[in-house]
Amino acid sequence: MRRVLAKRSKKAGLPPGTMVHLGERPAEKTRIQVFDFDKEQWQFHEMESVEDCRVFRDKSTITWINVDGLQDLALLETLGKCYGLHPLALEDILNTDQRPKTEDYGDYLYTVLRMFYYGTDAKEFVSEQISIILGKNFVITFQERAGDVLDPVRERIRNGKGRVRTSGADYLAYALIDAIVDGYFAVLEQIGESIEALEMQLLDDPSQDILREIHRLKRELLFFRKSVWPVRELISSLRRDMPNMIQKETGYYLRDVHDHSIQVIDVVETLREILSGMLDIYLSTVSNRMNSVMKVLTIIATIFIPLTFIAGVYGMNFKYMPELDWPWSYPLLWGVMIAILIGMVVYFKKKDWL
Amino acid sequence: MRRVLAKRSKKAGLPPGTMVHLGERPAEKTRIQVFDFDKEQWQFHEMESVEDCRVFRDKSTITWINVDGLQDLALLETLGKCYGLHPLALEDILNTDQRPKTEDYGDYLYTVLRMFYYGTDAKEFVSEQISIILGKNFVITFQERAGDVLDPVRERIRNGKGRVRTSGADYLAYALIDAIVDGYFAVLEQIGESIEALEMQLLDDPSQDILREIHRLKRELLFFRKSVWPVRELISSLRRDMPNMIQKETGYYLRDVHDHSIQVIDVVETLREILSGMLDIYLSTVSNRMNSVMKVLTIIATIFIPLTFIAGVYGMNFKYMPELDWPWSYPLLWGVMIAILIGMVVYFKKKDWL
Amino acid sequence: MRRVLAKRSKKAGLPPGTMVHLGERPAEKTRIQVFDFDKEQWQFHEMESVEDCRVFRDKSTITWINVDGLQDLALLETLGKCYGLHPLALEDILNTDQRPKTEDYGDYLYTVLRMFYYGTDAKEFVSEQISIILGKNFVITFQERAGDVLDPVRERIRNGKGRVRTSGADYLAYALIDAIVDGYFAVLEQIGESIEALEMQLLDDPSQDILREIHRLKRELLFFRKSVWPVRELISSLRRDMPNMIQKETGYYLRDVHDHSIQVIDVVETLREILSGMLDIYLSTVSNRMNSVMKVLTIIATIFIPLTFIAGVYGMNFKYMPELDWPWSYPLLWGVMIAILIGMVVYFKKKDWL
Amino acid sequence: MRRVLAKRSKKAGLPPGTMVHLGERPAEKTRIQVFDFDKEQWQFHEMESVEDCRVFRDKSTITWINVDGLQDLALLETLGKCYGLHPLALEDILNTDQRPKTEDYGDYLYTVLRMFYYGTDAKEFVSEQISIILGKNFVITFQERAGDVLDPVRERIRNGKGRVRTSGADYLAYALIDAIVDGYFAVLEQIGESIEALEMQLLDDPSQDILREIHRLKRELLFFRKSVWPVRELISSLRRDMPNMIQKETGYYLRDVHDHSIQVIDVVETLREILSGMLDIYLSTVSNRMNSVMKVLTIIATIFIPLTFIAGVYGMNFKYMPELDWPWSYPLLWGVMIAILIGMVVYFKKKDWL
Amino acid sequence: MRRVLAKRSKKAGLPPGTMVHLGERPAEKTRIQVFDFDKEQWQFHEMESVEDCRVFRDKSTITWINVDGLQDLALLETLGKCYGLHPLALEDILNTDQRPKTEDYGDYLYTVLRMFYYGTDAKEFVSEQISIILGKNFVITFQERAGDVLDPVRERIRNGKGRVRTSGADYLAYALIDAIVDGYFAVLEQIGESIEALEMQLLDDPSQDILREIHRLKRELLFFRKSVWPVRELISSLRRDMPNMIQKETGYYLRDVHDHSIQVIDVVETLREILSGMLDIYLSTVSNRMNSVMKVLTIIATIFIPLTFIAGVYGMNFKYMPELDWPWSYPLLWGVMIAILIGMVVYFKKKDWL
Repeated sequence: MRRVLAKRSKKAGLPPGTMVHLGERPAEKTRIQVFDFDKEQWQFHEMESVEDCRVFRDKSTITWINVDGLQDLALLETLGKCYGLHPLALEDILNTDQRPKTEDYGDYLYTVLRMFYYGTDAKEFVSEQISIILGKNFVITFQERAGDVLDPVRERIRNGKGRVRTSGADYLAYALIDAIVDGYFAVLEQIGESIEALEMQLLDDPSQDILREIHRLKRELLFFRKSVWPVRELISSLRRDMPNMIQKETGYYLRDVHDHSIQVIDVVETLREILSGMLDIYLSTVSNRMNSVMKVLTIIATIFIPLTFIAGVYGMNFKYMPELDWPWSYPLLWGVMIAILIGMVVYFKKKDWL
Repeated sequence: MRRVLAKRSKKAGLPPGTMVHLGERPAEKTRIQVFDFDKEQWQFHEMESVEDCRVFRDKSTITWINVDGLQDLALLETLGKCYGLHPLALEDILNTDQRPKTEDYGDYLYTVLRMFYYGTDAKEFVSEQISIILGKNFVITFQERAGDVLDPVRERIRNGKGRVRTSGADYLAYALIDAIVDGYFAVLEQIGESIEALEMQLLDDPSQDILREIHRLKRELLFFRKSVWPVRELISSLRRDMPNMIQKETGYYLRDVHDHSIQVIDVVETLREILSGMLDIYLSTVSNRMNSVMKVLTIIATIFIPLTFIAGVYGMNFKYMPELDWPWSYPLLWGVMIAILIGMVVYFKKKDWL
Repeated sequence: MRRVLAKRSKKAGLPPGTMVHLGERPAEKTRIQVFDFDKEQWQFHEMESVEDCRVFRDKSTITWINVDGLQDLALLETLGKCYGLHPLALEDILNTDQRPKTEDYGDYLYTVLRMFYYGTDAKEFVSEQISIILGKNFVITFQERAGDVLDPVRERIRNGKGRVRTSGADYLAYALIDAIVDGYFAVLEQIGESIEALEMQLLDDPSQDILREIHRLKRELLFFRKSVWPVRELISSLRRDMPNMIQKETGYYLRDVHDHSIQVIDVVETLREILSGMLDIYLSTVSNRMNSVMKVLTIIATIFIPLTFIAGVYGMNFKYMPELDWPWSYPLLWGVMIAILIGMVVYFKKKDWL
Repeated sequence: MRRVLAKRSKKAGLPPGTMVHLGERPAEKTRIQVFDFDKEQWQFHEMESVEDCRVFRDKSTITWINVDGLQDLALLETLGKCYGLHPLALEDILNTDQRPKTEDYGDYLYTVLRMFYYGTDAKEFVSEQISIILGKNFVITFQERAGDVLDPVRERIRNGKGRVRTSGADYLAYALIDAIVDGYFAVLEQIGESIEALEMQLLDDPSQDILREIHRLKRELLFFRKSVWPVRELISSLRRDMPNMIQKETGYYLRDVHDHSIQVIDVVETLREILSGMLDIYLSTVSNRMNSVMKVLTIIATIFIPLTFIAGVYGMNFKYMPELDWPWSYPLLWGVMIAILIGMVVYFKKKDWL
Repeated sequence: MRRVLAKRSKKAGLPPGTMVHLGERPAEKTRIQVFDFDKEQWQFHEMESVEDCRVFRDKSTITWINVDGLQDLALLETLGKCYGLHPLALEDILNTDQRPKTEDYGDYLYTVLRMFYYGTDAKEFVSEQISIILGKNFVITFQERAGDVLDPVRERIRNGKGRVRTSGADYLAYALIDAIVDGYFAVLEQIGESIEALEMQLLDDPSQDILREIHRLKRELLFFRKSVWPVRELISSLRRDMPNMIQKETGYYLRDVHDHSIQVIDVVETLREILSGMLDIYLSTVSNRMNSVMKVLTIIATIFIPLTFIAGVYGMNFKYMPELDWPWSYPLLWGVMIAILIGMVVYFKKKDWL
């Protein structure tokens, strides 16, 4: 079962702004990757020491610092100080069960949302919190672990395709959010396919396993929806308030990703309704099966119980049972019993049970 | 099963504004039809080469360019450049699972919605995305394939009936939307008739097939609603914002089509509730049947099991069973058994089971 | 079954504003009745020819023209031209499945809603669309057929009771709407009484018919609600916008009818919840019955099946069965069997099944 | 069953403002009680003739006129004229199924809501409409019958406790509303206790009566909610609009009673959910019982039916059945049968049915 | 069962502002603890007499007065007078079933909400009302009994960690609310773990107890939600209105706790949906069990009832039954019966019942 709630209790009572990592799995080692680019050129570094960040901060080029792994608090704190991040923002970056939201801290914009993708082997999708800090000429992203859906953006920076190299940091931030929301569609497609497969199976052979599978998918959608629902409102608040880090031109693109987020929610709701319908069909199929079982029992019992009674009667040992001595009574009785049997069958036919 | 989601994953990661066609079925060949008209006259062309578009762009007459089929990306790109369409708009035209919406790009208005109609042979309705670009003196429509619900508008252009020839491009766009929304009613009528037929059948003979049919109709409505619901908000945003492509006079007509869109949603909701009620009746009928089956079983078994026991008793082979030698015990026993039978029947009558 | 949707397809594709009658039943003959009155006097005419309308149009008295029957398109068109009605308004008058709404056309106000009443013989209520045109000094009403709930207003015009003769045309329009909304209460009362009767029957004898009746009433309410729900919003938009045809004084009265419309909706919702509760009781009663049937079966079978087995054992024909020769074995066996029977009965008593 | 709707049809068609009493039970005799007070002193009268009202109207003291019983229309009309009440207000006072609301008539404020209390003997609570007219220095209350929840207010006027004697008429009106809303809590407490008692019984012995009781309570809550829901909006509109009869200071108190009204609704909703949960438990308990009945039947039948068959085989009268003559076959058969029985019991144990 | 409603009836009819304690359990003895601090130093007192409050009121340091236990009305009244609290605020402090809310009384802000925590031994969480009065330089908290979730804040005051000593009274109030909301997470975690445990058990062994446990948890969540839901709106109204007791800087922190409150509600809703899904699984599992019981019964009965009939036939005592004398009829009959048995088994296999 996916956890609905991270272990918040670890930090209950600490002063707000205290940095405590609430993530589930310790990542390998915190890794910092830096893209630095403008129209003409781009560089890529694996940053060894956080002190290097100062270099990029003061350059006019656009810098994207990506942090994989949140367990090295000292490192994050240094980075935070370097870019002047508020303690509350740093705290939220570490609490990996944040509700998606965006907050304007004046000099920078803090956005947090969840990223979903299928790992190399996994049947279940991976869910990971990603925080995006958008400043004047830099974007910092914090992920829980290595592996993400942002490779296409990296590719575009390298190739110089699209507008990412020629636009500002806000466009880069948009491109990241767009890639994350596109990732939602991939997950929904997969879930949709599971549902289709399940539906086929439901028609063929409705076993108890299907019920569990329906509920597993329902819960996945529940979890997914909880993470995706606020994204719409996040983007729509970005569009409405247009904090000064965001240029007017980027607005068009935000409208686009806003539409996508609404569409994701539409699909989630539709899939939920389809699952509910499947549950109904499952239950009704099971109950129909039971009915046909009962019918067989009833038919057999109803036919043979009276016949057995008749046979029982002539199995009695009374001395004075005149029928026993008649020569034709045995074949006659067979006749009677066959007549009863035929009568019953006709009756059941009429009742539409056969 | 209708797909809830197109294969978006094909384009995950591409830069926004990249043109990728997400439609399901390859159309035949992209075909471009042009109507060019003013009050006095009208012309109709099958456009061979997209370069011709420039001719119409600069004329003062009203031009309606209809594109059937979206697979020829080069052609669409040329057309897009000719009329100055934004890459995001072109991308949306190609993504054929857009949520209905309208977007003001300044020089032109981009509207996308779904069109429904019954094909020549099909039992299921065809669902197709249609994009409408409304500019100063032109309307461009992009459809997924040939076949649509717009013939009446074409007819009116040819005949000069109604206001379509005497009004501006905005009225033409309205007339197209109106025709599409009218098409919704046709589909709903058909669904409504299927429901009525199903209801008749439900009263006559509630089989398992009815259940599947109810769910199929439910899903059709679900799919339909998903596409129709946003149309109301689309039209109401047109009325509210009244972008400068739309003249004041056309406002009255928009109000009319707005009412129709609300009515469509009302009918969809009502049909959904009716289907839910039918599901209840189905389930309850099935359970009532089971009850009557159980009653028959119970009555037969309850009557004959005790009688068989009695017959069994006098079939025992004990040496000392005085009843066996009495001359009247056999007819007496028959009397007792018939009395028991009558007693049971009376009891069941009283219990209202017979 | 009441139709959820009129046969709109008849007019799909016609230019907006085309007059096509969508009603279900042809009325007899279109009949036009005119009341013309001011404080001092009143006149009543059956208008023979529509050309007469000009006479009333130019008089300063208040004129109420009531049209029964919509099949005579030419007549309606002439009337429409005489009073300057917009083609869209005329189209809406003829489409008899309009959603209740009010539209301000500048010189006049177009209001459409549904009127409900019980016919002379009918078990089901009659539902009819009524359009009300309110102009400076005239009111025109269009009904689908003869028979309505407006007689009390006619009576008040004749008697001069109330404010109808002393106030303007807007008060007359209000009085008509008020009479229509009062008619809703009458229908709800009748439905409420059907529900009460059904409830009595449900307690006495829950048959399958009750289920159908519950669903019939549910559907009636569904249909009713669909027509009544928008009336609230219609009246509230009248109060909010106060088009210039409506005088300030009439505002108080609109508030009153607004309250009534909310109350109608309240009652509809309450009745719907009561019906749902009745459905629950019905289903649970049916299932309780089944339980008691099963209990009888179980008790009888559980008691007699083992006893029959015992009797069967001593009906076997083995040569060496020592019990058969003992003199007391037969009465002893009876003792054993009676003991088993008593034991079972005690067990069932304890289990609370008897 | 509580009526959802009063007999409105009595007055369908009468001009608005016509006074018709729609109450259910004729009250005894209309009784008018007057409290007249200021800071220093208070008087109490039973008013004999309505003409006396003029005396109080023109005094500067605060007057509370309480009318018990609405059947004496002439009296009410005189009173209405004396204080200048609008015909629509008088009509609403008499229609005793008003939706709670407040209306500003300029010189006075008309508020109508429902009052609930348990009568001396009744198991069901009494529900009564109360209308409150708040003028400059007077409050008039109209009740359907004698008996109310306002005694504490009367007591406070007599004692001079609290602010009621030292504040204006608006505070008196507030105090009355507050007493009525406090009465809601008393009724909810009683319903809550019934629910608790029912829950105990549900665990002990779930009979069919519990189902009926659950539905009775559900319906009571439904009825209660219908009357209480609009009270919140009533008070909140008073606070928002603050008509000029209400002084600023009273605003704090209105906020308080507003909170109470929200709390009442919260409790109603919670109780409704609890009842729904109890319904689920009831249904599931019934179905569990059925399961255990079925299990007993199955165990007994499954064990003894095969054994009876075996006994039957050796009860056959074939001449050549070699087993019959073997000396050990009888005890051997017993051995076989006991082995079968033990096998079955073990199987059922394993299946967890025993 | 947790009470949905406190015994309000105790105070029905008393004038508003009357102090009556509605709490359930008498606390030990009212205890007053005072923290008095500024940047440099802090003091802690157990206050013996309320008269001491004047000392703190007039100091420029920040004072936090915590009152445990509400039964000493005189004491509370003195304290109220000392800090100028409104009678309505004092009344609300004593009514321990307040809906969470915040009210601006000009000089101070009154906030009331519920605090949840697990006691030392308890399986159920403790729910307690806490009122927070925020003035210029003081915070007063009123709790129902000793024991709370505020120790971390006390610790931070002592240690001087975080901003609590360097900021104003508003930050202290925020810190208290934050600690309370953090406590919600702890309770939700516990409930979440109960649900997980229950889910494991549901898969292993779905007994009737699980049903009761599901409903107990549902009710706990219902109760919890009722208390938590308004907290969001409480904090959001604080942020929106920003009463003048609250400094701009504290706004950031309020945004943070606002997010937490939304998250709490999200989790509650998710847990509720999970419980509903578990209920479905439970019911369906029970019904599946019943099905498998029925199948066994049907198979056994269907096989042996006809065979028993055949044995019964040849147990009859007719004189002329030629089969009885044939030498091969007994083994032949065995052959027939075994064939029937095999036929049945094959049939059931085909029907997928075995």
